[in-house]
Amino acid sequence: MADATEHPEVESEELKGLDSRRVEAIREAVEARDTARLSELMEPLHAADIADVLEQISSGERRDLVQMWSGKIDGEILSEIDESIREEVVDYLPRNVLAEAVRELDTDDVVDILEDLEEPEKEFILDALEDADRVAVEQAMSYPEYSAGRLMQRETVAAPEDWTVGQAIDFLRAAETLPDQFYHVILVDPRMKPVGNVTLGRVLSSKRATKMRDIAEEMFRTIHATEEESEVAYLFNQYHLISAPVVDESDRLVGVITIDDAMAVLDEEHEEDILRLAGVGEGSLSDNWIETTKQRFPWLFVNLLTAILASGVISLFEGTISRIVALAVLMPIVASQGGNAATQGLAVAVRALATKSLTESNVWRVIWREIAQGVANGVLFAAVIGVITYFWFGQPLIGLVIGAAMIINMFAAALAGLLIPLGLERMGFDPALASGAFVTTVTDVVGFFSFLWLAGLVLL
Amino acid sequence: MADATEHPEVESEELKGLDSRRVEAIREAVEARDTARLSELMEPLHAADIADVLEQISSGERRDLVQMWSGKIDGEILSEIDESIREEVVDYLPRNVLAEAVRELDTDDVVDILEDLEEPEKEFILDALEDADRVAVEQAMSYPEYSAGRLMQRETVAAPEDWTVGQAIDFLRAAETLPDQFYHVILVDPRMKPVGNVTLGRVLSSKRATKMRDIAEEMFRTIHATEEESEVAYLFNQYHLISAPVVDESDRLVGVITIDDAMAVLDEEHEEDILRLAGVGEGSLSDNWIETTKQRFPWLFVNLLTAILASGVISLFEGTISRIVALAVLMPIVASQGGNAATQGLAVAVRALATKSLTESNVWRVIWREIAQGVANGVLFAAVIGVITYFWFGQPLIGLVIGAAMIINMFAAALAGLLIPLGLERMGFDPALASGAFVTTVTDVVGFFSFLWLAGLVLL
Repeated sequence: MADATEHPEVESEELKGLDSRRVEAIREAVEARDTARLSELMEPLHAADIADVLEQISSGERRDLVQMWSGKIDGEILSEIDESIREEVVDYLPRNVLAEAVRELDTDDVVDILEDLEEPEKEFILDALEDADRVAVEQAMSYPEYSAGRLMQRETVAAPEDWTVGQAIDFLRAAETLPDQFYHVILVDPRMKPVGNVTLGRVLSSKRATKMRDIAEEMFRTIHATEEESEVAYLFNQYHLISAPVVDESDRLVGVITIDDAMAVLDEEHEEDILRLAGVGEGSLSDNWIETTKQRFPWLFVNLLTAILASGVISLFEGTISRIVALAVLMPIVASQGGNAATQGLAVAVRALATKSLTESNVWRVIWREIAQGVANGVLFAAVIGVITYFWFGQPLIGLVIGAAMIINMFAAALAGLLIPLGLERMGFDPALASGAFVTTVTDVVGFFSFLWLAGLVLL
Repeated sequence: MADATEHPEVESEELKGLDSRRVEAIREAVEARDTARLSELMEPLHAADIADVLEQISSGERRDLVQMWSGKIDGEILSEIDESIREEVVDYLPRNVLAEAVRELDTDDVVDILEDLEEPEKEFILDALEDADRVAVEQAMSYPEYSAGRLMQRETVAAPEDWTVGQAIDFLRAAETLPDQFYHVILVDPRMKPVGNVTLGRVLSSKRATKMRDIAEEMFRTIHATEEESEVAYLFNQYHLISAPVVDESDRLVGVITIDDAMAVLDEEHEEDILRLAGVGEGSLSDNWIETTKQRFPWLFVNLLTAILASGVISLFEGTISRIVALAVLMPIVASQGGNAATQGLAVAVRALATKSLTESNVWRVIWREIAQGVANGVLFAAVIGVITYFWFGQPLIGLVIGAAMIINMFAAALAGLLIPLGLERMGFDPALASGAFVTTVTDVVGFFSFLWLAGLVLL
């Protein structure tokens, strides 16, 4: 975020993006210990791309690169690095470089870095900060994790509500330090309660004598410091906010959150949704295989238990299967079709809950829609698979049985795909935890049971 | 986006959010035809929340509400409405209200609305615009769909690169119309090529005599009008851009994209990823059940075909199953475990491709990691299920067989979960199209085949 202000004398230059040829060249320079070449390749890159380089190379290359180039690793690069490798990079850095790096950051970025570090590094970084910054960071850390208080920057640009545009401009010109990025002048009452936002564009385009309060945005929103960051991201996305003042429990201004931070949170929330739906604890491509194995194991274990449960259902009908082996051939079709239908409904429901478009106002209509669509697709696929089965096995009755089981299971799938995430949400859990493994248990059990039980009834 | 400027005399008021009690009250007011009550409930809401109300109520209520309140449906509300119901709302609106609504919008929002409408409405809206706006909108529509040219707003704030801060401020004060939201003054050379960005904060905090070029941001990025919007969203997220100038093929400034638009695209891309991974064509909660049935049918049909393929594999081993029915009980465990493992890898790969953290530089390391993790989890679960099976069926050999099949299938799952999305990406498709149905075909076929084939070999 601090890309604008450090070298104002430099003329703007077009940003070089990252491509894999450059990464290859960097790896070669590291292997050849060619510091000059390495600098030449790294210098034109944006901090975010440097962080990507560090993520994409192997762990050994990472160590060598950081050691060869450590003087250039600054706070901005540190705050861009994915949390899964940040601790590793921090460990490789000489202490003085680390201290220098964190001192130049805004407090919200320092907080973000501290959150993922172990105690000794945390202590070291806090000690490296100037007194005022350390106090600010410690105050921010006193807010709950994933709250607006952790996300906000404490540097705000505020003005008394009765100021004129001229007063505000003079104040800004005289200010010794201003945040790297700010988009509003926040109007506050004498108790420091925010009462309005004036966009910088309006300040710039208004006459000096204009009252600030007369050009304030028509509506504005304050955010409580204890608000969850996912809610903050929702508010920014919903109301197209660019920055919003953060207040404490007595409604006093304590900080400001800007849209780039909200966008990063939105992106993380999405990552969490996609990975949780697929039953992955936390995923990062720079992890090694042991970490990856550990991350994937828990949900696979849950899935194993549910698969065994489904097998238990099948074993109830061993007698039936031993007399008609075709049932063993056909039964996965019913279960698989139900599983897929449930996964579809699950994804739609999780997404709708995340965007708050599934609420008490429309939940019954949505339940009804899911049931209707489940039965409709059930009937369609019952017809298709019934006919196919009839021609495959030459028995009309087995076609009837699989069709009936299909309808039953698609109905179960519709309910499970919607009600399980809804129930999790009501109980205060993340609905995306209703990952495949969970929901498909229902469709496996219902699918195997309904098919084999009907078959036993009709065919034997 | 146009929330600031229309009524500058109004004091800021705290924004009222939407809760389901308010939606209920609105529905009651609509049912009772109580226009006064409806206005009272709707007035305090932000356009985005009004759009949400329209999405959450039933189709009949929507028609009644729009007819009772049509005078108040403005451009901002129209541009917030989800595309799945926008055409419906546009149809209910009196023509003069519609014309009024679109006239007040920025050109990028008009383009966004036009994209989803049918020809007669399109024509009507284009005709309703002022000449200059119509030309601007038609030019924007000449860019490919989902391109930066469609996303950008054409109203830019640019200044010659040799201006001073004072000149820029005087220019802004004198300007008759300025965009509703802008965050940079774009510096251009005499050929209108953007050469730098100055943040409004820097303009405000610098002396009048300061040269604009001396306070330009150190790095900046221009975006080509034909760039895909998903790439635009990536750039904003990666480089924390707030706004970026858009240029045509001769590098001349033609528009500007702001972060709120990029955030909306990022959100849409995520929605697409989640829904595609789950095999849903396009999902919206306000769709009726017939639409929903149609949306879900195609991937369910693909899944049916792949499920039949898996059944075909099982049918090769009917003889084996008829002699050992326990195999029918156990075989879904191997397939299910492989399917889940593949889904995990798939989600991680799709996410990594979307964030460009899976590249040529690390693809071999990631392939190796996935294989290692697949075999490792395969061995772990082989041991677990082997022992369970031994105790369940009292036969050590069947435990061995299921363990071996588990390792083979987890290995196949690791490869399929990564290589299928990678292959799709290489061929220019969206890797998220490698939805469950696709990838689990591999694990079903490999799972059933390896287990039944090994069982035939070892147990008979």
